[in-house]
Amino acid sequence: MSMDQLEAHFRRISHLSHVSAIMQWDEAVMMPHAAGSERAAALATLGVVIHEHLTAPQLPELIDAAEQADKSGELDAHSSANLREIRRIVRRASALPSQLVESLSHAQLRCEQAWRTQREANDWQGFAPLLREVVLRKREAAGALSGVLGVSAYDALLDEYEPFFTSAQIDGLFAQLRAFLPSLIDQVIEYQRTRPFLTPRGPFPKASQEQLGRLLMAAVGFDAQHGRLDVSHHPFCGGVPSDVRVTTRYDKSDFMSGLMGVLHETGHAKYEQNLPRPLREQPVGQARGMSMHEGQSLFQEMQVSRGREFLSFAAPHIAQAFPDASAAQPEAFGVNNLVRLFTRVARTKIRVNADEVTYPCHIILRYGIERKLIDGKLNVADIPEAWDAGMRELLNISTGSDCKDGCMQDVHWAAGAFGYFPTYTLGALTAAQLFAAAERELPNLREQLATGQFEPVNDFLRRKVWSVASLYEPQALLEHATGEPLNPKYFEAHLRKRYLNGTR
Amino acid sequence: MSMDQLEAHFRRISHLSHVSAIMQWDEAVMMPHAAGSERAAALATLGVVIHEHLTAPQLPELIDAAEQADKSGELDAHSSANLREIRRIVRRASALPSQLVESLSHAQLRCEQAWRTQREANDWQGFAPLLREVVLRKREAAGALSGVLGVSAYDALLDEYEPFFTSAQIDGLFAQLRAFLPSLIDQVIEYQRTRPFLTPRGPFPKASQEQLGRLLMAAVGFDAQHGRLDVSHHPFCGGVPSDVRVTTRYDKSDFMSGLMGVLHETGHAKYEQNLPRPLREQPVGQARGMSMHEGQSLFQEMQVSRGREFLSFAAPHIAQAFPDASAAQPEAFGVNNLVRLFTRVARTKIRVNADEVTYPCHIILRYGIERKLIDGKLNVADIPEAWDAGMRELLNISTGSDCKDGCMQDVHWAAGAFGYFPTYTLGALTAAQLFAAAERELPNLREQLATGQFEPVNDFLRRKVWSVASLYEPQALLEHATGEPLNPKYFEAHLRKRYLNGTR
Repeated sequence: MSMDQLEAHFRRISHLSHVSAIMQWDEAVMMPHAAGSERAAALATLGVVIHEHLTAPQLPELIDAAEQADKSGELDAHSSANLREIRRIVRRASALPSQLVESLSHAQLRCEQAWRTQREANDWQGFAPLLREVVLRKREAAGALSGVLGVSAYDALLDEYEPFFTSAQIDGLFAQLRAFLPSLIDQVIEYQRTRPFLTPRGPFPKASQEQLGRLLMAAVGFDAQHGRLDVSHHPFCGGVPSDVRVTTRYDKSDFMSGLMGVLHETGHAKYEQNLPRPLREQPVGQARGMSMHEGQSLFQEMQVSRGREFLSFAAPHIAQAFPDASAAQPEAFGVNNLVRLFTRVARTKIRVNADEVTYPCHIILRYGIERKLIDGKLNVADIPEAWDAGMRELLNISTGSDCKDGCMQDVHWAAGAFGYFPTYTLGALTAAQLFAAAERELPNLREQLATGQFEPVNDFLRRKVWSVASLYEPQALLEHATGEPLNPKYFEAHLRKRYLNGTR
Repeated sequence: MSMDQLEAHFRRISHLSHVSAIMQWDEAVMMPHAAGSERAAALATLGVVIHEHLTAPQLPELIDAAEQADKSGELDAHSSANLREIRRIVRRASALPSQLVESLSHAQLRCEQAWRTQREANDWQGFAPLLREVVLRKREAAGALSGVLGVSAYDALLDEYEPFFTSAQIDGLFAQLRAFLPSLIDQVIEYQRTRPFLTPRGPFPKASQEQLGRLLMAAVGFDAQHGRLDVSHHPFCGGVPSDVRVTTRYDKSDFMSGLMGVLHETGHAKYEQNLPRPLREQPVGQARGMSMHEGQSLFQEMQVSRGREFLSFAAPHIAQAFPDASAAQPEAFGVNNLVRLFTRVARTKIRVNADEVTYPCHIILRYGIERKLIDGKLNVADIPEAWDAGMRELLNISTGSDCKDGCMQDVHWAAGAFGYFPTYTLGALTAAQLFAAAERELPNLREQLATGQFEPVNDFLRRKVWSVASLYEPQALLEHATGEPLNPKYFEAHLRKRYLNGTR
């Protein structure tokens, strides 16, 4: 009875969140720039209304009553897990006063909208005060959450993206990565020096890139009846399970980045599209945290699509998409060259273009800075200097006063997503661990990938991850899927195999 | 004090309505078809939330207190008018139980979504039960509203689109139109028989049509910084004043219909974009009813854009947009031929393609049927027969079992918009009356239109209509703008001048 009422209430919240998700997509993809302030106000109000629903006065009593029912064994496993998630969400939401939710939403949207032009203009002076406002509000939010959840301020933010995970765990995992990455990066760059590649010469028309992207995303299992592909400043996967909105961006002189953007986001999209239909309107039917979500996108992009097998399948489609370029330079479009192209390793400034070997360094940098920002140990004004120092230390690159390709390159902080960055690397570890588990279960996996048979591996992920949604806590889901907790050895083995042994 | 609270509350409602407007645009323009049922559920919930805000328990007391303040002369003219609008809106909303609002929203979205494919397939049998559901719910709503507003069921629905107007007034106006239209249509068709025209031969590429549309909509004053142009099944103008979403559709073999769709909707868009910025989040800052809105679109399309002066300005742009077609057939793209093309009169089945002379017949037909549907004097199953009979009588055309181009051609009833159709013809009368007033004030109006100077006439409309928003009741606004109440003589004079005297 109380559980029924809770589910009706959260169904309503899921409808409002549906609206919010599509509106955020519209804001990034469709909205004319000049409409930004009115849109920020409208979305802030919607956020307040959702927040009021999450903190509705009748909820604590309903949750208590449902917990009694659960203890008496009246709830099945899914309802019981749903109750656990509801309790968690309500607890988080109740920690924040409505006014803070609204001022945070305003500050974030203003900063995110300004970022789109200020980043291009390297306008740190214009951006910093807007970001400072976001950081101040976010510190307030972290403080309020910290008190209620009984964890540190930063961990309270991390918990939004990766429930039950802690910065102590991240510190441990990142220390393991730091132990082998610097020398591995040196070795790989040295190894690749003797293995040259041909750069395909464009132009690669936008329409052809888009068509190729649609073809390959459909091949790997994106359901185009329940989603779209569009263009935005920064690739993302938004929308809702019934209507997943994937975006990428196209560079006429380089088809690889746009294509891998599509495939990466398609990994996210397949997770959403395969969540269990009957549970989608409840918290238990949602995807299980951002590490597992990023695990899906990196499974698709890094484990599958940059591998020799997938590229063997894709090579003829790529050549066909760009008939002039491939006719002029057939060797550049051959499988061997594509493999070298799609696994190039280089120390670069830009995270989203980074290869999977140097990528964790970009994350370790951001994680360090954002923890200090939230803990009040670093001011916004000092970010460029901290960024430059971190880049020198981790990747031996100086960004100097280049904020465009330095600390302003990502939208995350502008959008208030502190605690999000570490999940990229947790996702990379998750993806490698999942792929190893898939290989154990599917002995012909590599042949299947090479011949465009993606259903077996999709079926593996559907059974082990997608259909399970949020039945378990995140780390329990990973154990359910792979037989063990998160272990960086699979990621390290994957890197050594692909980048030093020339296999995979 | 109470007025401040009311305004804060209605600001919040305007934010939620903003979200709803963009979501409805997305549903029609972007959403993949298969996501329809989930979207219907989400939008229904948003509708319920808005409805709950409109019927919030604190409102009656706040309104009473604000009325006391108004009587003591404490409110300025805009606040006083805002209070009048708030009272009206709350009264309407409070008449409907939340459950009915939700079931109506569901029924309408389901029917509208199905319509998109069923119309194409002429599938009346599939469509009728969905429409029946809408009509039943709408009758319920009309009954509830009728009791509260003290007007007939149909008038209670009409009041949503044209506040304070009645079917008795419509009956009077439509009787005047019926008195002269049939013989005028005969005369015009006879007159045009001796004035042949050349049909421009395509193809007219979609991209070129779109570019031409953007050029002309910008020329007449559409602010592209605060809006978009896209494609949908049925042209419409949606969104919000800061972000107006215009749509049209393109026919490769005929550029005229798509172009006039753009210009028509641009008339709506300019009204929205020029509403007074400080009042936009309040009811008093909204556009003043659908007749005045349609008056703006028909002013742009019929009074201005199909006239000889505008076409003289547009002709070179049209020729330039389609260089191959215009080079092959220069005479077809000359001003004289364009005037004949854009003022062709014919008895046809399709309302949206109808010329302005026969158009009122399409409206009189729909008005008669929808009144009977709401009054329970006609069942949904009997619509095709009533449609055929009406078309024979009014336009001497039989639609027989062709529902696609008969009673299923419009989305309005599927979307629950009963009481909307008459406003098209009230809008045509309004547009003619406004244009006559503009000509009195701007002696050089025709020269200005011919030379692409649209700011003087925009300024006239901005001062007389757009900036006034909902300060007055609709008929008072028309009197404010033109000096007299709605009078069909301007429309009749316009038709006789343009279609029988060969001027305008």
